[in-house]
Amino acid sequence: MSRCLRLLIAFDGGGYQGWQRQAHGPTVQGELERALTTLCAHPVTVHGAGRTDAGVHALGMVAHFHTATTIPVVAFSKALNSLLPADIRILAAMEVDVGFHSRFDAWGKTYRYDFCTAAIQLPSARLYTAHRPGPFDPERIREPLAELVGTHDFSSFERTGSRDRTATHGRGAVRTLFRADCAPQPGRADCWSLRLTGDGFLRQMVRIISGTLIEMGQGKRPAADMAAILAARDRARAGPTAPACGLFLETIYYHDPFTTSSPAL
Amino acid sequence: MSRCLRLLIAFDGGGYQGWQRQAHGPTVQGELERALTTLCAHPVTVHGAGRTDAGVHALGMVAHFHTATTIPVVAFSKALNSLLPADIRILAAMEVDVGFHSRFDAWGKTYRYDFCTAAIQLPSARLYTAHRPGPFDPERIREPLAELVGTHDFSSFERTGSRDRTATHGRGAVRTLFRADCAPQPGRADCWSLRLTGDGFLRQMVRIISGTLIEMGQGKRPAADMAAILAARDRARAGPTAPACGLFLETIYYHDPFTTSSPAL
Repeated sequence: MSRCLRLLIAFDGGGYQGWQRQAHGPTVQGELERALTTLCAHPVTVHGAGRTDAGVHALGMVAHFHTATTIPVVAFSKALNSLLPADIRILAAMEVDVGFHSRFDAWGKTYRYDFCTAAIQLPSARLYTAHRPGPFDPERIREPLAELVGTHDFSSFERTGSRDRTATHGRGAVRTLFRADCAPQPGRADCWSLRLTGDGFLRQMVRIISGTLIEMGQGKRPAADMAAILAARDRARAGPTAPACGLFLETIYYHDPFTTSSPAL
Repeated sequence: MSRCLRLLIAFDGGGYQGWQRQAHGPTVQGELERALTTLCAHPVTVHGAGRTDAGVHALGMVAHFHTATTIPVVAFSKALNSLLPADIRILAAMEVDVGFHSRFDAWGKTYRYDFCTAAIQLPSARLYTAHRPGPFDPERIREPLAELVGTHDFSSFERTGSRDRTATHGRGAVRTLFRADCAPQPGRADCWSLRLTGDGFLRQMVRIISGTLIEMGQGKRPAADMAAILAARDRARAGPTAPACGLFLETIYYHDPFTTSSPAL
């Protein structure tokens, strides 16, 4: 196991129970490990930069694994893609220091949440865009987006019952958001992308923040409430969890010259 | 059957054997007639503005039907959508003169062909964008696109064996293209949209033209050959038929103030 390889991965999460290997149901990690075990001719364990929930997509997931294979790194993406289903693609593979860890070495991530506010959504958008019909004014969420940026206890935006796991990170529900914005999708009327960049995210945090912001932008919830929702540290104060199909893990950031970014966003 | 209703329809063609009702396999017309027959409480025949092949998508298909129902037109879209599968959506319904005909009254159509030329395609794009890997230069197809505009015999771009049907239109394979262009997709690197607007299209004409232009743009076929390919009136001279998943029927044009256009392109 003298080599460490790092993969940049895109996947359509629609057919998976999420990233993490499970006893039942297909997972992205499970598919990758199956393909890599075939390719490397020894059992392979893949370590991802994070977990994504069932139905969530990725444009730039990062994972690493150790291997004894002598296959050159330049041949890896193509060989691996030929063994993977079409809804998982290796965008790049590179050889890294054996001490590299996709999760511990990451300093931040960007998630994107895509949603459509038209009365009727185009069928060809429905698998990758949440449908939240109702007039949406992005000006309404300018202030709440600004309130979210910074270091906060995000308990109000964490799935109930998730605390055991986050507590093991030693920082409870405190996370730092570096950036939060909302922009119209180019070329698509009434379609929007929320982008959140932070040092880490709690379970379903992006989807609960998105569900809350969309309601604010549609005038269904007072935009002035964001500071109070954060301060309450109470999941019941925030809005609904927006559907998984709109969520994309876009980029994971590292302190190296090859900071991963998906080539075709 | 004293009323005529006109529908603006979007569908994801991935699950259908095309528009036209068939003895076997689901079709868009079949699903619409099933839902309308339930809603109107009498058998309904739907007349579409054109046929689309298996796997082809639509953002702005138009169809009409005659009915005896007294359901107000403003209630039609919502009621019909509740009876249709999620991959077919009624975007608008309007009452029109009983003499209206979605096919005979149309004076033109726009088709869009979406393709990705990156070495590896993002999985979340694969169902709605053809993957044709290889560097693509849109400048290379500027001349061939201009050659296509105008009135020509497009036999070279017609599926072999389709002539019987087109002959019944009385104009053989002669069609007029008003406009033909290629533009990068906003926000998506290495993704392109070809758009063709004309008074009519032969069977698989857009897909064969697209397959030919993509090869020209990738330097796999001389761009100077377009005039000769047209003049040959021989399917064997043109390029491959590009895959159905990249093709969208975008707009159908009528001489009325409500010329249909999809609300969310």
